[in-house]
Amino acid sequence: MTQQPLALSFDVFGTVVDWRSGVARESGRHLAALGRDDDPAGFADAWRRRYQPAMNRVRSGERPFVVLDVLHRETLEAELAARGLDPAALGEERLADWTRAWHRLDPWPDSVAGLERLRRRFPLVTLSNGNVALVVAMARRAGLPWDAVLGAETSRHYKPDREAYLSTAAMLDVPPGRLLHVAAHHSDLAHARDAGLMTAHVDRPMEYGGAPAPDRDQRQDWDWSVASMTRLADALGA
Amino acid sequence: MTQQPLALSFDVFGTVVDWRSGVARESGRHLAALGRDDDPAGFADAWRRRYQPAMNRVRSGERPFVVLDVLHRETLEAELAARGLDPAALGEERLADWTRAWHRLDPWPDSVAGLERLRRRFPLVTLSNGNVALVVAMARRAGLPWDAVLGAETSRHYKPDREAYLSTAAMLDVPPGRLLHVAAHHSDLAHARDAGLMTAHVDRPMEYGGAPAPDRDQRQDWDWSVASMTRLADALGA
Repeated sequence: MTQQPLALSFDVFGTVVDWRSGVARESGRHLAALGRDDDPAGFADAWRRRYQPAMNRVRSGERPFVVLDVLHRETLEAELAARGLDPAALGEERLADWTRAWHRLDPWPDSVAGLERLRRRFPLVTLSNGNVALVVAMARRAGLPWDAVLGAETSRHYKPDREAYLSTAAMLDVPPGRLLHVAAHHSDLAHARDAGLMTAHVDRPMEYGGAPAPDRDQRQDWDWSVASMTRLADALGA
Repeated sequence: MTQQPLALSFDVFGTVVDWRSGVARESGRHLAALGRDDDPAGFADAWRRRYQPAMNRVRSGERPFVVLDVLHRETLEAELAARGLDPAALGEERLADWTRAWHRLDPWPDSVAGLERLRRRFPLVTLSNGNVALVVAMARRAGLPWDAVLGAETSRHYKPDREAYLSTAAMLDVPPGRLLHVAAHHSDLAHARDAGLMTAHVDRPMEYGGAPAPDRDQRQDWDWSVASMTRLADALGA
């Protein structure tokens, strides 16, 4: 019988919020204003594909830690340049607003209700690669009831570095084996498990607009596997 | 005319919660169980007097950063020993629970209502020397609506180190001059102001049970000076 967790940590992009629709919506607005007819969802996918390589330069030590807002700005400019748009010609205000597309993502329909139930029973924290300002702005807009905003910026390590998981457990003063990490991504959960955390998978088949997830081959038998955040609340008796 | 802040940071012990009554209540329970008749409020004052010297050893670099829960445990044991009680004879469970007295402090009567109003308009974060686990446990028990738990542990610096104030503004991605620090302590506000923050003083005449505050000679003309958290909400139009 699995022990109950003492606290829950959450991946955010894709697990709690629908990043692709939100980034497509915000990018579509800017692309249209520039007279471009790029497919907004394709733009969101292309921007997101630059995310792992950008973080890897930090994880490898090639560059010092910078927050995700900075990486999002750099990868936005790179994607615009790749499409023949000169970022410098677009103006600071537009680039800053476009970068903050990642602050304005909508939760999946079950997220808020599920989190509110879970929070009655467990402390809920973010364990996201998003920085504090980003996660706070998103939570205030979307009504996400976090007890604390932890993760990459507070640990100075991007997931899946082991330190990101362990420092979150340490800050909560719970043993890693009693912290339940919740994510839609098998790769994230595999690293959480390696660090000694409990694991819960929430299936988000529409994260990539219905296309298969890139980490589907890393599926394991997780401690919990559910179809929504409200089902996770059911499973944990919350 | 003073500009409006973009976010608010809060001192917690004494400003938002009544540490003295709570620590006296919890300590009185343990002292009585040990058959002691020490005055509980006097015990709280004595324990608290060991707080600044313990933090100073971290601030000075004499020892590496440790969280406040660790310092509270050490200073509890020192205070017990000074009163002729051998901590080692009391048992781990009692010492751990007694240390967590600081997790179970009641808010001043106006705190929750004032913070709830302020939060509708501004992001609210803690800028406390309390560690994340402590502030999260306190907030869950007392209903304090923080957007994020920042401060000593996330900056790895105890107030009044300048880094504690500046890293909080940086994590919120606001200029220091648009972060309003709220505290009952003139000393805390003086250092916040030196670091470039806006300042609001909340008067808490009962923090020391009616005795004068030790930092009363550091009073300045703060950006806002109010008698309660609801008055701060009034003053900021929240």
